[in-house]
Formats: sequence, structure tokens, C-alpha cells
Amino acid sequence: RYGYYGKGNPKVVKLLVCNLDGCLTDGRVYVSRNHDLLSYSLKDLDGIQMLQRKEVEVRFVSERDLGSALLDTLKLPCKVETNVSDKKQVVEQWMEELGLSCWEQVAYMGCSYSDVQCLKLAGTSGVPYDACVEAKMTDCLVCKYSGGGGAIQEFAEYIEHSKESRKRKFYNNQES
Amino acid sequence: RYGYYGKGNPKVVKLLVCNLDGCLTDGRVYVSRNHDLLSYSLKDLDGIQMLQRKEVEVRFVSERDLGSALLDTLKLPCKVETNVSDKKQVVEQWMEELGLSCWEQVAYMGCSYSDVQCLKLAGTSGVPYDACVEAKMTDCLVCKYSGGGGAIQEFAEYIEHSKESRKRKFYNNQES
Amino acid sequence: RYGYYGKGNPKVVKLLVCNLDGCLTDGRVYVSRNHDLLSYSLKDLDGIQMLQRKEVEVRFVSERDLGSALLDTLKLPCKVETNVSDKKQVVEQWMEELGLSCWEQVAYMGCSYSDVQCLKLAGTSGVPYDACVEAKMTDCLVCKYSGGGGAIQEFAEYIEHSKESRKRKFYNNQES
Amino acid sequence: RYGYYGKGNPKVVKLLVCNLDGCLTDGRVYVSRNHDLLSYSLKDLDGIQMLQRKEVEVRFVSERDLGSALLDTLKLPCKVETNVSDKKQVVEQWMEELGLSCWEQVAYMGCSYSDVQCLKLAGTSGVPYDACVEAKMTDCLVCKYSGGGGAIQEFAEYIEHSKESRKRKFYNNQES
Repeated sequence: RYGYYGKGNPKVVKLLVCNLDGCLTDGRVYVSRNHDLLSYSLKDLDGIQMLQRKEVEVRFVSERDLGSALLDTLKLPCKVETNVSDKKQVVEQWMEELGLSCWEQVAYMGCSYSDVQCLKLAGTSGVPYDACVEAKMTDCLVCKYSGGGGAIQEFAEYIEHSKESRKRKFYNNQES
Repeated sequence: RYGYYGKGNPKVVKLLVCNLDGCLTDGRVYVSRNHDLLSYSLKDLDGIQMLQRKEVEVRFVSERDLGSALLDTLKLPCKVETNVSDKKQVVEQWMEELGLSCWEQVAYMGCSYSDVQCLKLAGTSGVPYDACVEAKMTDCLVCKYSGGGGAIQEFAEYIEHSKESRKRKFYNNQES
Repeated sequence: RYGYYGKGNPKVVKLLVCNLDGCLTDGRVYVSRNHDLLSYSLKDLDGIQMLQRKEVEVRFVSERDLGSALLDTLKLPCKVETNVSDKKQVVEQWMEELGLSCWEQVAYMGCSYSDVQCLKLAGTSGVPYDACVEAKMTDCLVCKYSGGGGAIQEFAEYIEHSKESRKRKFYNNQES
Repeated sequence: RYGYYGKGNPKVVKLLVCNLDGCLTDGRVYVSRNHDLLSYSLKDLDGIQMLQRKEVEVRFVSERDLGSALLDTLKLPCKVETNVSDKKQVVEQWMEELGLSCWEQVAYMGCSYSDVQCLKLAGTSGVPYDACVEAKMTDCLVCKYSGGGGAIQEFAEYIEHSKESRKRKFYNNQES
């Protein structure tokens, strides 16, 4: 674990600077409205924004009725569709809206029984480490991070690095 | 871990769709009332609803005085009995109410000293990974997930897959 | 992991009963006052109450100024001393009050630099898995659970099972 | 794991004293303002204060707009700069202010894409275990603790113990 004999000389350190987000804190953003509280990770936000800079559209679906006040407080830089009972239908509407002709161009990440259909259809698919068994049984990338804790960033990095054909470097580093 | 060279071509991804619940968030539902806050996992809710669709009755017991306002806010789709000092007595009342003749037809999941008696009586029993030693020492399924983090879904999947005699597939997948 | 081929027949399950605390929830008690929020685990409360039934006095020290309103909300069944700068002095006052003649009769659990002195003095001492290095370097039981997640219960079970000379059974089960 | 047959005799324990912070609780400090909630670990605060006693200046940067009310509630014993878009520039201002002539005297801890530049420049650098791949790929100490859960304390102990040339003892103990 400690293969660190490298550059620098800790003996002369006069100033320690830390990123507050994700170093002092665990990088979670918690927001509350009325009696509900929701949280997500800044790591996943980092991953989303990285894909957006590469012109991948990122959107969210939820079966739950989250309430618009709570959603506004989340300040996500993406479109979110809540109260979704048929996820496949919503994704296909989005594909039409964006002029995508086939599921091959869609990446899908899900964790629940209700995600299984889309996980099977999408050209590229992933599940967090703690997804349900049925979701894991689809032919998908099983992330090493759990939901809410970096799985989206990991999947985003997989998509991005695949594009750039730097697979080997990516995986080697992940394992460290 | 990365046995993913399968279908799809990440290079052509134009749209990433994620389930917000359990992928962006950790799938926890937090509710607060007055000075108390409680949380549970959507994964466990998924497992409960899967069993309910198969006509298994699901109920909860708690030793604590949780307060009806907090319980209402939780919006659980199950009967909950709080302030329970004798769990065995409550379960036996429920068995009578449901016309069940013996403990063989009851599955019980618990984690605390006060659950030991029911864990021993129930025909099928399970404990979360982080249960107390005495609960783990009963002849029960020790889940790989901890309490509040998927143990109920795991136990529900065990019950369901046992019914359908697909044990081997279930376990193989769990290990992945 | 799945050495469960035992009693019972999941195929006939008609009723699933779960302990809400620690199975549906992660067993954490969260309380909030003003802008502060604090949480602890019901598992540790179980451990504390088990020792109290065996007539071991359990008390807490804290360096922090937690505020009496927040402490009252916690509803702990133990004496808590806050704003403590010299932990050794406080413990020795308690020993005098309880008529204890030596540190041999005291068990101490701590995790921080400020606990090191007491960890060294106490007859029996333990640290959570995530304690600081200096605390871990004292001659103490290093728990497998982290602070706030069962370390006190684990230490309590160690104390209790040692009394009853059932060490082997305890450890074997812990490892499972 | 249980190499504890040492001093003391648990059979005679009459009094158990626990540190409330980090033993009963998980040592997290949660503060909330309006709809935002933030948390950090007392372990990291311990590490920061240990360095401060050794006359290392400790400061935080954040890309986020955290709001001064929330920051005041955190009561951190360090300077915090929020809304930072160029972290390198801020660190170099601080170096000038403190009379430091080169990055060799700076230790930097980060986890995000936006930290990569400073991680490469700093004489001593570290990342939490759950940092993004790109940050981990710099020549830095990869902590065994994650962000918000002790990574800063671990990095602080690395800096401090390096000074005192007690590397071997430190690492041996960390592994336990």
C-alpha cells in the first residue's frame, strides 16, 4: 500500500493545503426540504461534468416522487425525470428528442429491478457494486464503488477512457 | 473484477441515463421529525415489495418508541409494531391473525439480543452481517450486507430464489 | 459464506417479520438540536445495557462542548461528562466515587490522542478499528468494528465473555 | 486479529469509561444551515491540530460556494477559501503571504480533477483512498482512509512521523 518513497521531503513542510470537499468532508452534498433529506457525492458530480465537457448528454430517472422543491435544492446540472413508472419509455422519448437512432448510443446505469430492462437494451451499461442481483446478472460493468459513492464517476471514466483507448492505464490505476 | 469486454461500444455513447435512486444517491431514504431522524434503503424496500407481489406478508417490530409522526413520514408499505418488549408474543399474535399454524411458515430477520428467541423459533431466519454475536450464533443465514444496507433485500432474494429452486445461479451471482 | 442449508424450508414462508431497528434501518439513532446533529448505534446501546445488567458501571467522557440540550435529546442511560480536558483526572474522580482502588478494575475505550494516557493505565482497554495510530499502539484490544458502528458492543462482549471463560466460542463466532 | 492476551483481567471490570466522540459516535461533526448539511471527522481535526502544534500552517480550499453561515457553524481552526476556481493561484498567494519560496515546502491533499495540478507541484502530496483516478495517478501517498473519514489525519501522521524518522514503526502499526 505504501509505495511512496518518491518526490518531496516531508521534513520541510511548512504549509498543508487540503481540498475541503472530499478530503475534510466525505464529499457528500446533503440537502433537506420539509421532512426529506437527500445526498449525493461530489465525485459523481465531477464524473458527470467531465462527460458533459465531452458532449455526452447526462440525464436522470427516478421512480420516486421527489418533489420539485427538493430537486431544486439539489442543484443538479442535468435534466431529472421523477415519478417514472416505465423507464424504457422515458429513455426512448429522450433518444427521439436527441436524434439518436438506436440504444447502441445509450449508456445506462441502474441498480434496481426496474432498471433491468434498460440495462439489457443499452449499448453500454453499468451497475453500482451494491446493485440487486437481477441487475448484476445483466451483461454490464459491475463498478467497484457503491451507489452514491462514486459509481457514476467510475462508469463515466470507463466510458471516457474507452473512447481514448487508454484502457490498460485506467484499469491498472483502478486496482491500486 | 473487470470482466467487461462484452456488448456495446463506449466510443459511440451520446447519452448517459442513470437511475437517480441508488446510483446518484446511495438509495437511502432519510426522514426527520422533531429532533429525530431515521433512514432506510430503497434496496430493502425493493426486496419487501418483491415478496409482497409473491403474497408473502411482511411486518416490522421495534423495541423503540418511534412516535407515530415519524412512522407516518417513513411511508412504509407494511404494518409496524413499536414499543415491543416481547417479540415472540407479537409474532404469535400475527400468526394467529393470518391463520398460520406453525413457526415453520415464518421467516424472521433480527440483529439484537432481543431477536435471538424468534431467530431460533422461525422456520427460516437471517441476520445482517453486523448483527450481534449471539444472534449470529443461531442457525441462520448470515447476510453479506449490513443492516439498513440491503440485508432485507438479500434475505428476500434468498427466500424467493429458494422457492424457485434456482439456488445455484443466485449464489454464483452473489459472489461476483 | 453461505453455509446455510439448515433448518426450515423457505418455500413455505407466508410471513416475514423483521426487526425495524438494525435490519430495516442501520440501527443509528440521529438526534439534532439547533445546528448540530449527532448519531450513535443501537448495537452499542445493546452492549452498554448488557454490561449494566451485569453490574458494570458505564460512563462517557468527551472533550467537546456538546450542549446539554443535545445531550438530553440523546437519552443515553449513562452519565456523560463533557468539556473534559484531563480525562485521567475525571476517571480517577469516578474511581474514588465508586470505591475502586486501582485502574485494574477499569476498562477504557478511546480512539484519540487524548485517550492514550487512560488506555495505558486501564486494566482492560480497547480501541475502535479506526482509532488513531498512537491509540492503537497501546497494548489494547483493536476491535473489528469502527467507532459509532459497534465497537463498544464488541468491547462489551469481550469483557463479558472473558468473565464467563467462553473465549474460544466468542472468537470463533466473531470471525464468521 | 485478536492478539490480545495481554495486561489486565476483564473478569474484575467494575467501570467502563468510553470516549463519547469516535467510540459511541462515529466521530463525525454534522452541521446544518438552511437546507445544507455538512460533516467532517474529529479524527481529521485531531490530525490538523497535531500539525498546528508542530507549527505547520493548515488551510483549506473549496470550489464550492459554501456560504459563510455554514462555514461559521463548522468552527474550523483554519483559514478556508471557498469559491476557488484556480487552486494553484490561491496556494501561491498563501506561499507568498507566509514567505515560502518554493512548492517543496508545501504539502497538498486533494481528490478531484481540479486538484491534479497542485498535487503534481507540491513537495509532498496525498490523496484519500476514494480519490478520482487522475488524482491517484500523480506521484502521491494514497491513504488507506477515504475522504471525510481520517485521510487528513493519516496524511498528517505521515508528515509528522517522517520528520521524526520513525517511518518503520508508523507503517508497521498502520497495517495492523
